Amino acid sequence: MQLLEELITIDHQADTPIYLQITNAFIHNIRLGRLRKGLKLPGSREVADLLRINRMTMVAAYDELQAQGWIEMAPRRGTFIKKDLPILSPKRIDAVQHAFTIPGKPLFPLDERKIIPVSASEFPEAGKIIFNDGFPDSRLAPVEELIRSMRSFAKLSVHKKYLMYGGAQGTGLLRETLAEFLSDTRGLPITPGNILITRGAQMGIYLAASIVLDPGDPIIVGEPGYSGANLTFIQLGARIHSVPVDEDGINIDAVEKLCRSKKIRMVYVIPHHHNPTTVTLTPERRIRLLELSVKYKFAIIEDDYDYDFHYSSKPMMPMASLDRHGTVIYIGTLTKTLAPAIRIGFMVAPESFIRQATSLRKALDTQGDSLIENAIAGLYKDGVITRHIKKSVRLYKERRDHLCRLLQEELGRHVSFRTPEGGMSVWTQFPHTDMVKLSRAAYGKGLIIRDGTEYDTPTRKYNSVRLGFASLNFKEQEQAVDIIKRLV
Amino acid sequence: MQLLEELITIDHQADTPIYLQITNAFIHNIRLGRLRKGLKLPGSREVADLLRINRMTMVAAYDELQAQGWIEMAPRRGTFIKKDLPILSPKRIDAVQHAFTIPGKPLFPLDERKIIPVSASEFPEAGKIIFNDGFPDSRLAPVEELIRSMRSFAKLSVHKKYLMYGGAQGTGLLRETLAEFLSDTRGLPITPGNILITRGAQMGIYLAASIVLDPGDPIIVGEPGYSGANLTFIQLGARIHSVPVDEDGINIDAVEKLCRSKKIRMVYVIPHHHNPTTVTLTPERRIRLLELSVKYKFAIIEDDYDYDFHYSSKPMMPMASLDRHGTVIYIGTLTKTLAPAIRIGFMVAPESFIRQATSLRKALDTQGDSLIENAIAGLYKDGVITRHIKKSVRLYKERRDHLCRLLQEELGRHVSFRTPEGGMSVWTQFPHTDMVKLSRAAYGKGLIIRDGTEYDTPTRKYNSVRLGFASLNFKEQEQAVDIIKRLV
Repeated sequence: MQLLEELITIDHQADTPIYLQITNAFIHNIRLGRLRKGLKLPGSREVADLLRINRMTMVAAYDELQAQGWIEMAPRRGTFIKKDLPILSPKRIDAVQHAFTIPGKPLFPLDERKIIPVSASEFPEAGKIIFNDGFPDSRLAPVEELIRSMRSFAKLSVHKKYLMYGGAQGTGLLRETLAEFLSDTRGLPITPGNILITRGAQMGIYLAASIVLDPGDPIIVGEPGYSGANLTFIQLGARIHSVPVDEDGINIDAVEKLCRSKKIRMVYVIPHHHNPTTVTLTPERRIRLLELSVKYKFAIIEDDYDYDFHYSSKPMMPMASLDRHGTVIYIGTLTKTLAPAIRIGFMVAPESFIRQATSLRKALDTQGDSLIENAIAGLYKDGVITRHIKKSVRLYKERRDHLCRLLQEELGRHVSFRTPEGGMSVWTQFPHTDMVKLSRAAYGKGLIIRDGTEYDTPTRKYNSVRLGFASLNFKEQEQAVDIIKRLV
Repeated sequence: MQLLEELITIDHQADTPIYLQITNAFIHNIRLGRLRKGLKLPGSREVADLLRINRMTMVAAYDELQAQGWIEMAPRRGTFIKKDLPILSPKRIDAVQHAFTIPGKPLFPLDERKIIPVSASEFPEAGKIIFNDGFPDSRLAPVEELIRSMRSFAKLSVHKKYLMYGGAQGTGLLRETLAEFLSDTRGLPITPGNILITRGAQMGIYLAASIVLDPGDPIIVGEPGYSGANLTFIQLGARIHSVPVDEDGINIDAVEKLCRSKKIRMVYVIPHHHNPTTVTLTPERRIRLLELSVKYKFAIIEDDYDYDFHYSSKPMMPMASLDRHGTVIYIGTLTKTLAPAIRIGFMVAPESFIRQATSLRKALDTQGDSLIENAIAGLYKDGVITRHIKKSVRLYKERRDHLCRLLQEELGRHVSFRTPEGGMSVWTQFPHTDMVKLSRAAYGKGLIIRDGTEYDTPTRKYNSVRLGFASLNFKEQEQAVDIIKRLV
């Protein structure tokens, strides 16, 4: 049995006992199918000779293999690799009888189809048009420039040697660059110490809420609201209190009323292009919310994910720029600026809070991608990102206008919407349509559109969806609206 | 005052009222310093003429600015930009009087210098030698190949259009590739559905522990142990119970004793090259631990972060490959294979658990980096990663031997250590040395070395550090040991 000699190599210098080296080699080769189930094995003496080891060592190895259930020794018949080894089936991990289920908590109720754009990692959507929730057109993303920038940083020997270690707060270069950019565009007078680089806005929301909230703590959100954030708060055990959202944003009277009756610790607000309704929080309400945060001592998460995409006029300065008491945790992202898969976002807050958030970030995700972070900083410095934003804003404004025109002209009385001042989607009500049916039927026709049920509450049905216009060119928009037209 | 006309543009088509557009433009320009503090402003009639708007609109804008505290109107003297605006100082966010501190939890006690290699994002360590905790030599990482692979994926139009959305579980391509690789190298007979792509091992530990543990739940870890994991468990509110680690790994009798008295829900174990001691858990103990997990119904986190780096013989199959009851959550990482800043790791578990973990991952970090994930899959397919591992193992074995020889010959009786079978560091005791002093003095001489105090407990002082050999070439090792020699 020449085979065994080839399959089993012994290292006499190793610390692992030889019988265990042999045991492991057998198991390895059985698993790989090189030693098939049911194979009759040579006796221990024969193997010992082949491998040039002491026979007792081989006896110990066979004993170990038998004890572990890999082989069986039948008196007089010989030694066999077991026939009923369940472990060669590729589905073994799931197919086995579970002694018990890992005692996990109830499944976090995030329905993928509702929360993130339909996953397309296996490309099941290739050829279909997607009305997503409001994402940029990743076909325009300056990926080539990003890769070039990565390459130029990767070549620096100092980068190779040191920067690979990175830091949990984000590279100094990117934080410096962002401090300047945020100061210029949003009036945030900050230093790099006020910034934590995150992976998109979601991580910022998770970190901020984890730090501030204990299980059972109340948090105020708008209704309808952003389910990605709400589900995070639920996941952290917070109790969610909703206040109505009207065309001026969240109702601040309702916030104050809640503050009087409960120890509110946090308010989550999207001041620009509120998700889902796209309304903007008025300056009056912003200032009142800031005042309340000081009076009732709660922290504000200001999720300004879409700030750079404003079409009608300049966006308002963030609340963080007016915050004189350090109660605002400002969260932004580049995933809207570049592409969803380029996972760079940021949190801006007082240094002490940033230190806490950095420390928690280490626990859940040691550090950032220093090479990509610096490559992005390079794109800022070269003006690539500013140019990309300018170009995108011009294009998305046209796409917004085109979609609104189509909705008006083609769907008319079937829809109700307001042209959004910014952002990447139109909050569209379908007053007379069963959206679940529409969504299903549309899929068959080549259009992916949500059914909007994630916004519904036990007492209110919105019958509305966000129609993302930024990632669809005119022709795609026309095809999409045409499919809807034939179905309503 | 020509200036104002240039600084303030009005969009008559916008939804934002004109007086607010003006208000915002004023604030913007004050912040940027274009309108300096104390500046006397023209009267409302004059500005209204300049901007060609109704005078009452301008009055409303000035009222708003006054209400928000940006300007003051002195009777008879005129209108001025306030002199005492605190917001122009770049340190404002921290410098203001805080009405209260954001009600965060106590700072998560991760001391950066102890947990991750000294942060070098600002390169303060340039020119210094670092005895890190056991990291690969990022100078060898196939970064050029990775970038090339990214570029080739980025060029695919289907990737541009769809893949940018990515998925929270990781791209199908990488999960398929890893399922094959893990089956070949570790005997894990799994499908892509059993894999969640994480960002390094740390995220895997955080997700697994979050899902299984509620605050107050007991978890068993080895002592000494990996502080990065322990602090995560503390952060999640778990109660940590330690069992001793000897040269065969964690003491299983002690595990069983704890199981008899407490409802243990999870055991965290590093079966290869235990951190910090580098010992390997023996097969007997592995099998006993698996049996106990079924008997006492606890989940095992098997953190096999260093599996591919074994020098003396083949590493043992992971416990996950023997797990017939679905109690093992297997965690691995490519950060050791490539470089710490390339943040790709993986979790292997039954599909139902992977679904839960994926769902939680969405809450804290929407999705992975699909472009990098697929680029890495490309490196596996092209054999780049396997070749890189082979090359690194050969080199690191030499570096391990070189360091051990140096420690023996140069430091002799000052140190006590065992040559590790694998991994990237030597667990070295300095029985007669004050390590805190040594660490400080070494820094002055150009060597960064930890003081090992993170392993100490109230009852035991280890006086030991992990000396990472993989990232230092012979000459750097010699310089490092020479510095220590002069200090002990």
